[in-house]
This record gives sequence, structure tokens and C-alpha cells, in this order.
Amino acid sequence: MIIPTEIIQQKRNGGSLSSVQLREFIRQYVAGNIPDYQMSALLMAIFFRGLDADELVTLVRTMRDSGKVLHLSDITGFKIDKHSTGGVGDKISLILAPLLACLGIIVPMISGRGLGHTGGTLDKLESIPGLQTRISLTKFKRILREVGFVIAGQTDEIVPADRRIYALRDATATVESLPLVVSSILSKKLAEDLDGLILDVKTGTGAFFPKQEDAIQLASRLIAVGEDFGIRVRALLTRMDQPVGVKVGNWLEVCETVACLQGKGPTDTMFEVYALALLALRAAGFTDDSSELLSQLKQAISSGAAMERFLLYVRLIGGDIQVIENTARCPLPPAIPIIAVKSGFVTELNAYQIGIASALAGAGRQRAEDSIDPVAGIHLHAKIGVVVQEGEVLAEIYTHKRNTNEICKLVSKAFSISAEKLPLDKIIIGEVTRNSELKPFNELV
Amino acid sequence: MIIPTEIIQQKRNGGSLSSVQLREFIRQYVAGNIPDYQMSALLMAIFFRGLDADELVTLVRTMRDSGKVLHLSDITGFKIDKHSTGGVGDKISLILAPLLACLGIIVPMISGRGLGHTGGTLDKLESIPGLQTRISLTKFKRILREVGFVIAGQTDEIVPADRRIYALRDATATVESLPLVVSSILSKKLAEDLDGLILDVKTGTGAFFPKQEDAIQLASRLIAVGEDFGIRVRALLTRMDQPVGVKVGNWLEVCETVACLQGKGPTDTMFEVYALALLALRAAGFTDDSSELLSQLKQAISSGAAMERFLLYVRLIGGDIQVIENTARCPLPPAIPIIAVKSGFVTELNAYQIGIASALAGAGRQRAEDSIDPVAGIHLHAKIGVVVQEGEVLAEIYTHKRNTNEICKLVSKAFSISAEKLPLDKIIIGEVTRNSELKPFNELV
Repeated sequence: MIIPTEIIQQKRNGGSLSSVQLREFIRQYVAGNIPDYQMSALLMAIFFRGLDADELVTLVRTMRDSGKVLHLSDITGFKIDKHSTGGVGDKISLILAPLLACLGIIVPMISGRGLGHTGGTLDKLESIPGLQTRISLTKFKRILREVGFVIAGQTDEIVPADRRIYALRDATATVESLPLVVSSILSKKLAEDLDGLILDVKTGTGAFFPKQEDAIQLASRLIAVGEDFGIRVRALLTRMDQPVGVKVGNWLEVCETVACLQGKGPTDTMFEVYALALLALRAAGFTDDSSELLSQLKQAISSGAAMERFLLYVRLIGGDIQVIENTARCPLPPAIPIIAVKSGFVTELNAYQIGIASALAGAGRQRAEDSIDPVAGIHLHAKIGVVVQEGEVLAEIYTHKRNTNEICKLVSKAFSISAEKLPLDKIIIGEVTRNSELKPFNELV
Repeated sequence: MIIPTEIIQQKRNGGSLSSVQLREFIRQYVAGNIPDYQMSALLMAIFFRGLDADELVTLVRTMRDSGKVLHLSDITGFKIDKHSTGGVGDKISLILAPLLACLGIIVPMISGRGLGHTGGTLDKLESIPGLQTRISLTKFKRILREVGFVIAGQTDEIVPADRRIYALRDATATVESLPLVVSSILSKKLAEDLDGLILDVKTGTGAFFPKQEDAIQLASRLIAVGEDFGIRVRALLTRMDQPVGVKVGNWLEVCETVACLQGKGPTDTMFEVYALALLALRAAGFTDDSSELLSQLKQAISSGAAMERFLLYVRLIGGDIQVIENTARCPLPPAIPIIAVKSGFVTELNAYQIGIASALAGAGRQRAEDSIDPVAGIHLHAKIGVVVQEGEVLAEIYTHKRNTNEICKLVSKAFSISAEKLPLDKIIIGEVTRNSELKPFNELV
């Protein structure tokens, strides 16, 4: 028998919890024997005191084992998932998953929804008419076996502890805690029976952890704990100062995904896709040199193989593939243009403000129960480093909202235009190691 | 409209809350619109970040105003209460209140119950057959007017916010927070419509804040906030290394109270009673010199006036005064003696261990809903500084419990006996000022 107040007090005083204490606290909470108010006190104590390596492994394992765990051993192949810490315009997963599947990697991907200024992969997929990401485990495995990848929502059966704890953290201002973020990410990923995990850890204005040192800490702890569970983890540190690609919003990002899969995607987006793909292939044991792997990846795009996989997946999960094959069939609301008030170089394009503007336009939600408008969003016509002329269209807003003043103001303010050109930061900062080192990533240069 | 998570986050990040934020959070909590789990997260954030002076005043005021507030303006006289931070064998209130009433001070005292190793004034009083401390406000005022003092329990009408928050703190390991302790004490005291408040702030092994610097901090914050509300606050720092007096346990302490009121009390207990009484008289504006006041206090004891007031109070509140007039009429369980295993000076008599032993014997409770045995307790036959011989009785345990091994072991271990005599610490360390200074208190030397 554990005494909850003793455990809270021990953590509050900076002590370490034994694996029995922490495990039983979580289990009793999930079983309904420990009330929310004791869990929230423990979460706040963890916010201030942290968790050591052993505590974190115990927390991750207990959360993972709170529900069903996938068993994919009957599907042959190296199983890998990619996780992004969340950003604006981040449709990388939708492109990366079919691409990796073309090279024989098995990608079982359980994704989440957007909250606040960041979008969610499931919301993007569900902007495709008919598509339903809430599927059974049986269907999940059937699609995975047939297509080589699957993207679906978390069912009630998988990691129920995380769902309950995450909702409580959201209501008690304990979201931004490194060990709690790590446990939430890894408990879900480890329930997928993976061999490897690729992390896209974002930093900058639009990232969950804007400061680079915090993002590096997060990456290195994810690697350390993941590897303690016996999977191969690689982490790329990428810049989220401006949105990824040129489209932000659910259906708009599906359109951009289709463009990427057709070989017509923006350079920054494809650069990031290829970088993460290379990390995944190396983790899976591919030993060819980078240029050889890169040409295989490009071949999967140019041959239409990746697009074909994507269409097969959409069809099997209930989506209308006709609108995918011809995205113009999906009507958008009238565009509201945002005009450059002066000429010069775009020196800033604040991802956070664009994310908030897109959410306000209808693409995001403030609360988990809010509904979203699939076609709302923002199309960016200029990005950092580009020259614009006064009167030129910087962006177009798609929304069904009546009052668009604040949205327009936010998008307009997100752009900084200057006479002087600033040096352009690379989207990929480097690869983070288990020991918080930052290795240059030059594979694509 | 306030957003609870924003308020929690602001405090978590070390910011100050506006009076509107803090007040509305508490009000909405008491009204049931903010759930326990958000309050417990805020309490834990306050544990780590503290509260500044303005926040603390807002918290105290909001808690005080969460229920009914006494209006005693129709009772003439300076109204004073005394609060002890809690100790072992602390029956001072029961002696001090009738004594001060004899000198014309009005003492409206709302007391609490014991928890853990410390006793509670209400539990002590209710060991008197028939006595019921749960009375209406009307009866409270009637007794106060007639006797000059009254000691009663907190009703549901007074400071409901404190009752709810205290229960939550107890369950979430947020009891030991200086601002939360201050708000809990002062909100209740300020609801009594006082002119002055005397604090007996304990330090040492048996105290709630064992470290002297923590106790001083508590005292000075209580003075500062209390004075901001316009009442005169005086604080004495006293030692709680060994129990007060020689009896610990509810009925046993009533017996010792009666002995004190009959002029036959232990020196340490009366010393503390007189010191606190002098502080109270000075706060009330008595300008006579100390020796004159002291002789008036001693006269109130020797004349039987204080005892008479006590008996009148007991009668009015429903207690059987025959057992008070002849305490031997109340049968005790057979005494279990604890024997000195060697000869020497008593150099330590651990108040905490005696408190726990007394609680285990049946005098205390582990949880608020536990019932207690009124006659259980410990009679100490030796205190620090006394010479004892091997084989002499150090203490007697009164209990109806079957298994007394652990209780005996605790009481035995609470005594340290040494060949060398240590210098004796004075029970009164000094008077604490608003600025955390410690002034010598030499009035009785």
C-alpha cells in the first residue's frame, strides 16, 4: 500500500521516488483510487523538481503498460515512427510515411490532434472527405501490412494513462515539464512496438520549446529513455521560426502534401523530409552512402510510387481519393489578401503568429472539444529571404469567419520587411546526441 | 472572467497575481466552479513560489470573507485571542483565557482539533463529560458576554474557504507553506472581530516548524499581515523541545489545567501563561509595570477567580463541573510505567516522540475522521534537567490499546539520560518583531 501524500511530499522535497511508489501512484490514479487533485499536486511538484533517469523510465513504462500494446512481430520489416514536437504548417509526416514505406520501412504512426497554435496530423487527414482516423487495431494492422504505413488516432485502448494525465496537465498548467513531455511522447510511441523512432525537435518562435537549449535537452532525454527501452532513436533539431512550406491549415496542408508527393513541393519542406528520411534509413541499418539513398528517395517521388502509397492509404481508411487526385475540386472560401506595405526583404515570418491566425481563421482549436473548419487556413506567398514589392500579396487568408480584422492584423504583423538582407538560417540546425551534443547535419549539402 | 490555468501558470512561473485574480480564484473554488485539481496545482505552485505581501493580504481577506464574520462591537472591552502554532501538552489556552477574562480582557476563541502528534484545544475540552464545543454564534456571544471568554469550534458558517483548502492541503502535501499557514491562521482569527492577537510560535522537535528561523519567519509574517488588517499582534517564540507541563492527552491536560488554575501547576506552564498574559495586557494598553501586572495575574489565580470563570464557562457550554471540581472522579485505565534504565540527568525529552506515543495511545488521530479516547495519554514524572535514579518511574502511559509495545518504546526512547548535566534552555526564547528581529523577553526574570 502506498500513501499518496507521502509520495507527493517526497517529490516536493526534491527526493527520488522508488519504482514501486511511482508505478503504484500512476496505476491507482488510472484505476480511480487516487483523485485528480493528488495527481495534479504531484505533477506540479514534478514540474519544479523534475524526474531522474530511473523515475522517468518507470513513468514511461507504467504509462505504456496502462493499456493495450501493439504486437507487430508478424509484420516483417524494420518498424519506425517519426515524431515532431509540433509546429506550424508541419505536414512532414504525411509525406515522410509513404516515402519510407516505398523503401521497405514499416511505419505504424499513431498521431494526435492540434491544440493552440499548432496543427495536428489527424485534423489534416480528416479534412479529406470521408476519412476517419479512429480505427480498430485490426484495421490498423491490415492497412499497415497492405500499404507499409498507417497513420491513425490513438484509441481508448492505447495508453489511457497518458490521455487522462495529459488532460489534467492541460488544466493545471503542468504541460511544459520536460520529463512529463518525454513520458507523454514515449509512452505512446513505445506502445507501437517500434524498432526505431525519428524525432523532429523544433525550436524557435513557433515551437513548443522556443529556446534551443530546452529543445536539445528534450531531444537528448527522449533519445536516452527511448534507447533504454531498446529502440534506436535519432533526433534532428530543426528551426520553427517560420512555418514549414507555404500552406498552413488542414486541407491546405493536404494540398501541399500532394504537391510534395508529386515532386512539386517547396524546397524547405522537401529538404526536411529527405533529412528525416535519411536518419530513418540509417537507423534501420541502410549502409549505402547518402547520395545513393537520396537518389532512391527522389526516385520514389518522381516515379509516383510514394503518391500511389498515399492514395492507397487514403482509400483504405475511407477517404475520397478523387479530391486528392484533383485538389481543385474542393471549394475554398474567398481569399483575403494581405498586402506588403513596403518593399524590401522579408526578414521575419513569425510562425507563432501565423499559427494563432490560422487557428482563429477556423483551422485550430482553443479547447480539445472545439470543432474545426477543414478548409480554413493561410497561404503564404512570401517567406524569409524573399524580396517583395510594396502592394504585392504576402499571404492569403481562407476563412468562413465573419470578423477577420484580428486575423488579418496578426498575419500582417507576422511579416517583417527590411531594406537590409539578413543571413538566411538553415532549417536544419543539426543532429542531437544522447549526451546533448549538437552534430552538424551535412548529408544533404 | 478569470482563466484558472493562466493564473496557475503565472504563479508557477514566479509572477505575482493581481488581487482580482487571486480573489476570484478562491471565490470560484468555494463556489464549486473551480475543481479541486486546479486548486491543488495552485497550492503546490504557491508552495514553491510563495506569495508577496499584497497577495497574502488578498488571500487572507478573501478567505475571511468567504463566510460569516463575528460582530462583537456590542460587547465592550479589548478583544484578544491567542493562537499557538501547536505543540505537545499545550494546554495554555485553557488557562490563559479565564485568566485574561479576570483582568477585563474579552477573549473570543475559535479553536481547532489535534492532528498528527499535536493535540487540539477542542479535543481537550470535549474530554469533559457533556461538553459540546459546536455551538451557535448566538450561544457563542452569550457565553462571551457572561464569562468574558469563550472557547468553541469553528462552525460551518465561519471561513468555509479555510476548511476546504485545509483539507485539500492535507491531502496534497501542501501544508508546510508559510503563506498558506499564515492565511489559514489569520483568516480565522480576523473573522473573530479582534482588537489584538497573541501568538505563541513554537520551535523545536515537537513544533510544526522545528527550525528557529522558519518559526521567526512565520511569526513576523503573521504580525505584518495582522497589523495590515488593523489589529495589534504580539508574538512570543517558545521552545517546544519537550512537552509543556507534565501531562499529555486530553483529559489529563484538563486535569493539569485545573491544577494550574488552583495555583498548583508546573512552573514551566505557568511561566508561559504569565508571559503570554503580559503580552496580551500590553497589547490591550495596560501601562502598569510588569511586576504590578504579574501580581494582579497571580491574584486572579490565588483568589480562585480564574477557576471560577473556567467553571462557569464549562457549565454554560454543557460540561459536567463536578468532575472538574474533583478530577479524581474520572476513572483512568491502569497506568503502564516506563522505568529509567540508568541514573543521571534527563538531557532530552523529545516532544515529537511523546506526541506520537500519546496519539498512538488513543489521544490523537491520524486522519480527521478518526475518533479519540479522552482519557488516553502520558503523565511525565521527569523533565529535562531533573536527576533520575535507575529503576525510577520516568512516565506513566494511560491507554485502552491492547498492544502497547510501540507506545512504550517511543516514550522510553524519548528520554535521554546522561551523567553530565547540560545547561537548561529557557522555555521563552524571545519576542519576535514585525521585522523578524528577536527581542529578549525578560519581564518575568
